[in-house]
Amino acid sequence: MHKIDVHVDQPYSVSVGHGVVRTWTPSQQRIAVLYDSNLPQALVDPIMSQVELAIPLPSGEACKTLTVFASVLSQLAERAFPRDCAIVAMGGGATSDLAGYVAASYLRGVAFYNMPTSLLGMVDASVGGKTGVNLPEGKNLVGAFWQPQAVYADLDYLRSLPAATFKEGMAEMFKHGLIEKPALPRHFYELSDIDRPEFAQDLARSIAVKAGVVSRDPTEKGERAHLNLGHTLGHAIEGVSKHAIAHGEAVAYGLHYAAYLSALEGGEDVTALTREFLHWMQPKTLPTWSWPALQAYMARDKKADSQGLRFTLLKTLGECYVARVSAEQQAKAFDLWVNDLP
Amino acid sequence: MHKIDVHVDQPYSVSVGHGVVRTWTPSQQRIAVLYDSNLPQALVDPIMSQVELAIPLPSGEACKTLTVFASVLSQLAERAFPRDCAIVAMGGGATSDLAGYVAASYLRGVAFYNMPTSLLGMVDASVGGKTGVNLPEGKNLVGAFWQPQAVYADLDYLRSLPAATFKEGMAEMFKHGLIEKPALPRHFYELSDIDRPEFAQDLARSIAVKAGVVSRDPTEKGERAHLNLGHTLGHAIEGVSKHAIAHGEAVAYGLHYAAYLSALEGGEDVTALTREFLHWMQPKTLPTWSWPALQAYMARDKKADSQGLRFTLLKTLGECYVARVSAEQQAKAFDLWVNDLP
Repeated sequence: MHKIDVHVDQPYSVSVGHGVVRTWTPSQQRIAVLYDSNLPQALVDPIMSQVELAIPLPSGEACKTLTVFASVLSQLAERAFPRDCAIVAMGGGATSDLAGYVAASYLRGVAFYNMPTSLLGMVDASVGGKTGVNLPEGKNLVGAFWQPQAVYADLDYLRSLPAATFKEGMAEMFKHGLIEKPALPRHFYELSDIDRPEFAQDLARSIAVKAGVVSRDPTEKGERAHLNLGHTLGHAIEGVSKHAIAHGEAVAYGLHYAAYLSALEGGEDVTALTREFLHWMQPKTLPTWSWPALQAYMARDKKADSQGLRFTLLKTLGECYVARVSAEQQAKAFDLWVNDLP
Repeated sequence: MHKIDVHVDQPYSVSVGHGVVRTWTPSQQRIAVLYDSNLPQALVDPIMSQVELAIPLPSGEACKTLTVFASVLSQLAERAFPRDCAIVAMGGGATSDLAGYVAASYLRGVAFYNMPTSLLGMVDASVGGKTGVNLPEGKNLVGAFWQPQAVYADLDYLRSLPAATFKEGMAEMFKHGLIEKPALPRHFYELSDIDRPEFAQDLARSIAVKAGVVSRDPTEKGERAHLNLGHTLGHAIEGVSKHAIAHGEAVAYGLHYAAYLSALEGGEDVTALTREFLHWMQPKTLPTWSWPALQAYMARDKKADSQGLRFTLLKTLGECYVARVSAEQQAKAFDLWVNDLP
């Protein structure tokens, strides 16, 4: 078992390994688990003896609405769940975004545990304290920073994951490697074998990249923006495709775009690497890619301030910075990118 | 003009005096004001030149729903309000609870200014960072701690306040005096004259009591519970009356109950003082007072944990403590209290 410490106000650990969920020993008496209703029951069962209330959530992104948020809160209030209760998320990143936001908001904040069941949930959503829901106007526009008390990344949960979903997580692992080169999984072709001991090591190293960034910048004042590499176009792709293109796929596209933009702005050209990843991943595609539509969506990005949009770019492999980029350069990078898609 | 400093993570000041709203100089470019739709337009006008978007809210407690919350958030997102925008609350405590929760949640947190227009809003809701909305199941069950960047308690806003609403604020000022004796407004009979210089002084002193407690305990881990004096029964009275009895009135009742409970538990008997206040205030009353109904409501109180309810009690005038009280003593205090109502 690997343990990664996250040094935020209330420090906590991420346990990575086979069967780690069974090591969970909560201190709270009254506990509600919010789980993705598509999960095999066998994954939920091991913790049910410690849980008073189990609330199934609409699967995936569909749970991230203020309507689901209100319904879950009412179910907790109806049962008079007290301030020293705990909320557990069991599912992918969407499940933990919703469940974490419920934990942050119910009675102005209660304890939260996260048991991610997808690789994306483990490598990305499990660390960082970002929680929230979507609005009809855009993704993740409402939420809170709320840290879990502990995270259990149980590799056994990955066995039932479809290949495409697994690869979504690999896109974030790949991103962590671009941000901090030692975490770059060079052989992502072979990585899908979760029973190789190297897999747990690579995953732990990748989580540690995010844990390091988040520890140094818990509320996104500076360095944390590096984690947005590939996400500005990525979020726009998700939005414009109405989530037909999943988060990890959109990030893989976004990383390739960020590589072009970085090179145009004078950085190291890593487009060969991001192209290789895209070819390996084979993400879903759109019939047409419209720059005006993507650009309009990006203008609403949370990372935009009154002066406009800032991009996370690579200076060299393993070194990021944040900068504004002219509309011309953005469009030029789009042309290069769109003509280079698999 | 009086200035009270609140020493929380991001320190801020409360300005108290006539015309202080006109001294507001926001650093943000894009600003939305959320105001109580019952406010005279003349009160909103002075800040309109600095504000891009003005959103009227249902008056009073009616704005504290997740439905209003969602609607306001969508209006901000529609206009692509960026992360460096600001939200202004203009209204009573309910308005600032909703507006503050919007500020805490939109893009996971943006700047917040509070311009309370009621005495209750100035003396209570303006300091402490508590924001949130109600659920059908109970009051303030959802929310966040979110500190304003500045508070402007403009006494001119109190001129149009109905007498009963003004007295609601006096109930919290009276509570602050019970908690810290030097702040006790001994002549609350005369206090309604907001143009006497003593009024601004008394108000500033009362706000300073809360600012002191909140500075020492921003997230309600300990001492801050003292501010709940009178609020356990108070919230239940509001709930059971379906808000026919307003917050300040319910608190006045609750303070008298807390005085009886404190005396039963061996504390100084201050029931003469709390009775005098009730007689002066003349709050609305219920046709019948049902102990089982109030007790059931209290069991859902946010201050309850898995071991049950804790009460804030007076040891002596100016000295509080928090304790569990047996059901028998609670019922006995109710009998004494209900037979001693005006």
